[in-house]
Amino acid sequence: MFAKETYVQRRAVLKKKVGSGVLLFLGNDEQGLNYEDNTFRYRQDSTFLYYFGLSAAGLSAIIDIDRDKEIIFGDELTIDDVVWMGVQPTLREKSDAVGVRETRPSNALADSLHRAIQRGQTIHYLPPYRPEHKLKLMDWLGIPPSHQEGSVPFIRAVVAQRNVKTAEEIAEIEKACDVTADMHIAAMKMLRPGMYEYEVEAELRRVAAMQHCELGFASIATIDGQTLHNHGYNNRVKEGDLFLIDAGAELPSGYCGDMSSTFPASKQFTPRQRAVYEIQNAMHIESVKALRPGIPYMDVYELSARVMVEGLKDLGLMKGDAGDAVREGAHALFYPHGLGHMMGLDVHDMESLGEIWVGYDGEPKSTQFGRKSQRLAIPLQPGFVHTVEPGIYFIPELIDLWQGKNLFKDFINYDKVEAYRDFGGIRNEEDYLITETGARRLGKKIPLTPDEVEALRS
Amino acid sequence: MFAKETYVQRRAVLKKKVGSGVLLFLGNDEQGLNYEDNTFRYRQDSTFLYYFGLSAAGLSAIIDIDRDKEIIFGDELTIDDVVWMGVQPTLREKSDAVGVRETRPSNALADSLHRAIQRGQTIHYLPPYRPEHKLKLMDWLGIPPSHQEGSVPFIRAVVAQRNVKTAEEIAEIEKACDVTADMHIAAMKMLRPGMYEYEVEAELRRVAAMQHCELGFASIATIDGQTLHNHGYNNRVKEGDLFLIDAGAELPSGYCGDMSSTFPASKQFTPRQRAVYEIQNAMHIESVKALRPGIPYMDVYELSARVMVEGLKDLGLMKGDAGDAVREGAHALFYPHGLGHMMGLDVHDMESLGEIWVGYDGEPKSTQFGRKSQRLAIPLQPGFVHTVEPGIYFIPELIDLWQGKNLFKDFINYDKVEAYRDFGGIRNEEDYLITETGARRLGKKIPLTPDEVEALRS
Repeated sequence: MFAKETYVQRRAVLKKKVGSGVLLFLGNDEQGLNYEDNTFRYRQDSTFLYYFGLSAAGLSAIIDIDRDKEIIFGDELTIDDVVWMGVQPTLREKSDAVGVRETRPSNALADSLHRAIQRGQTIHYLPPYRPEHKLKLMDWLGIPPSHQEGSVPFIRAVVAQRNVKTAEEIAEIEKACDVTADMHIAAMKMLRPGMYEYEVEAELRRVAAMQHCELGFASIATIDGQTLHNHGYNNRVKEGDLFLIDAGAELPSGYCGDMSSTFPASKQFTPRQRAVYEIQNAMHIESVKALRPGIPYMDVYELSARVMVEGLKDLGLMKGDAGDAVREGAHALFYPHGLGHMMGLDVHDMESLGEIWVGYDGEPKSTQFGRKSQRLAIPLQPGFVHTVEPGIYFIPELIDLWQGKNLFKDFINYDKVEAYRDFGGIRNEEDYLITETGARRLGKKIPLTPDEVEALRS
Repeated sequence: MFAKETYVQRRAVLKKKVGSGVLLFLGNDEQGLNYEDNTFRYRQDSTFLYYFGLSAAGLSAIIDIDRDKEIIFGDELTIDDVVWMGVQPTLREKSDAVGVRETRPSNALADSLHRAIQRGQTIHYLPPYRPEHKLKLMDWLGIPPSHQEGSVPFIRAVVAQRNVKTAEEIAEIEKACDVTADMHIAAMKMLRPGMYEYEVEAELRRVAAMQHCELGFASIATIDGQTLHNHGYNNRVKEGDLFLIDAGAELPSGYCGDMSSTFPASKQFTPRQRAVYEIQNAMHIESVKALRPGIPYMDVYELSARVMVEGLKDLGLMKGDAGDAVREGAHALFYPHGLGHMMGLDVHDMESLGEIWVGYDGEPKSTQFGRKSQRLAIPLQPGFVHTVEPGIYFIPELIDLWQGKNLFKDFINYDKVEAYRDFGGIRNEEDYLITETGARRLGKKIPLTPDEVEALRS
């Protein structure tokens, strides 16, 4: 948690930006795995954390802009709570720590909202992403789940603020990136042929937990790197496999890191692996070189895709003009995701508020396969923190689908691609801060070039 | 997953038991932490697992007893799903594997239920414990969340079946208990004064994950053992502290273990720690000796409490007749929880269905502090699997509350208790199967007696 003034200041900016009405903040509750009291690890809503700093279940808040009031709703502990969960600061004390003077019991919230509606005030709320939020909005505001669309002025104000990270946020994110790098380096050091994927996943967990961090998201740790969000860890690793990790730490403050690395299960890459890795590495390095204030991140994505097409042309897998191939979407057979996304309190920062607002400033997104997965398109600004994560994959089902439909025959040499069906996938990912003049990598360096990777592996 | 016949057989028994109507099974969906697509680890509903074996999001099922139909509702993968999550068996193939012949798309479920209602059939459902279930029951059956009470005949039939474990279930539970014991032993070996609690918690995670297990529940790993469900890991451990762990592994099949251990941060107990530990140990050993078919587990709880009162009388902390003290509830100052609970696919087995059905056969529970936390009261039967976990705690806030109210002055020497305010807490927990003639401990042995603990610690 930051100092009280941080939260007071953030709320002041927000109030000014939205201008009028009542802002409703839904804190997250505990979530039961298999019964109500056996809960997942607790995770507060990131927007609640950003403006109110308190990471505890059972809280909600309102900011009544018109009447200049800020209220946190929640309940004090009972003796049973103390026996089972220990002594904690009171709600009053917690609220004081983030500069909020008024607290009320949680059952007073619905009534507060109703009175505001009777006074003719607009209630602004953010789009719900948990079923519990949907139930609350239905109970409190009478809005059925299918109509809970959220308030655009509220969304836009939150995005404008949270998209630009402050110095104290950057320091936190960098700490999370350091732990994230430790996780990757430890896992890259420990993998040996014969191990199961879950043993590598266990090492990622251990390194994070030893530094009092959670995993910010379910790790990917697999020899099936061609499956983009592979969350199974059942395979046994053998000599010659390529291993892909995508994992990141989340600090107690909620800020997180997100990195990917790809390395050989053997001590060295095979020549074929190295050739594709070199192309992916060029995509990465050229993208990083392009980072600076003002450049639309969609342009950097396209650049990374063109670099890949040129490289795959050299390998004989693609052909034709690289610019045309990327414009038409032929590259997405091998690179079906985006180059990166905003990162902060959420690993995909503010994804719950809608990518259209976070990464597109309200402009419509492309529907083209591959390009539609680019989460960030707008010109970069100093204070943006985002990932750079190009990838190259050989996905047999996708190859078969495209070939069967004769898609992009002018750009893809399907007969050559055939030999790479069992290749797997390569992704490397680092986290960058846009500065006044360019960009700075956040956190410790993880191996990126083929030589750096082989040096660590041997 | 077990063989097809297991699930076919389980459903046949259930159908016979409930007799008529339509049974609705709500599978669990993914749950977003901080946005919809950043999900907690997936956990299927245990009753769904028990009867349908499939651990995947987006599934529901019905058993139409009257028309002898079993249907699994779910959706096939799209090419986008394959790209992001990999190739998986089709719903048809999955359903075949558990002996269900009919599958339908998930959006056909509401209509199936409506037609059953029109036919005059009763829809039986289980009490919802996740907000997502409440939304579904509201959408599909038009029942508002506050009225979703569940069907008692359905609950009772499930409890009757799941309470008695089969040989193949016991084998799974024992595997989970072995991993659980490994977790405890590794953590007991690694703790050194100067470490933080979260480092011990990290070791528990590592050992579970290295054997491809999840944590069945959030671990307790703390020097504040007097806080019964302490999930903070911030304290630094020092010489002389008592360290309490309550943790368990969950297998990919969903079956879990649950053990607790208490040990000195130093190599040996202090004389005061050893004296209280001896009493807790006697509670444990006497309780285990009493386990046999037919004995009400409430009697074993009372026995454990009387053993504690006798021990604390010897220390001068309690006085009077032990039987009277336990009947009136005076023991609960030091032993405010129960002796144990059913264990299986849930660590508190079927807690979502209601303890009143699982552990009390529908009889009302006591409201007495301490005794009300006893989750299992009924006579033990062969096939029951449950924990044995007596404890002794010194909870300063509870001592102050009781002393302030002059509670149980005839049984408690508050002036003597004062010297133990900073003692912490002790709990040891093992898992037992009730056999035809007695009981058998499940899983590898963890240190239990003070000598066993000190032997491992030195």
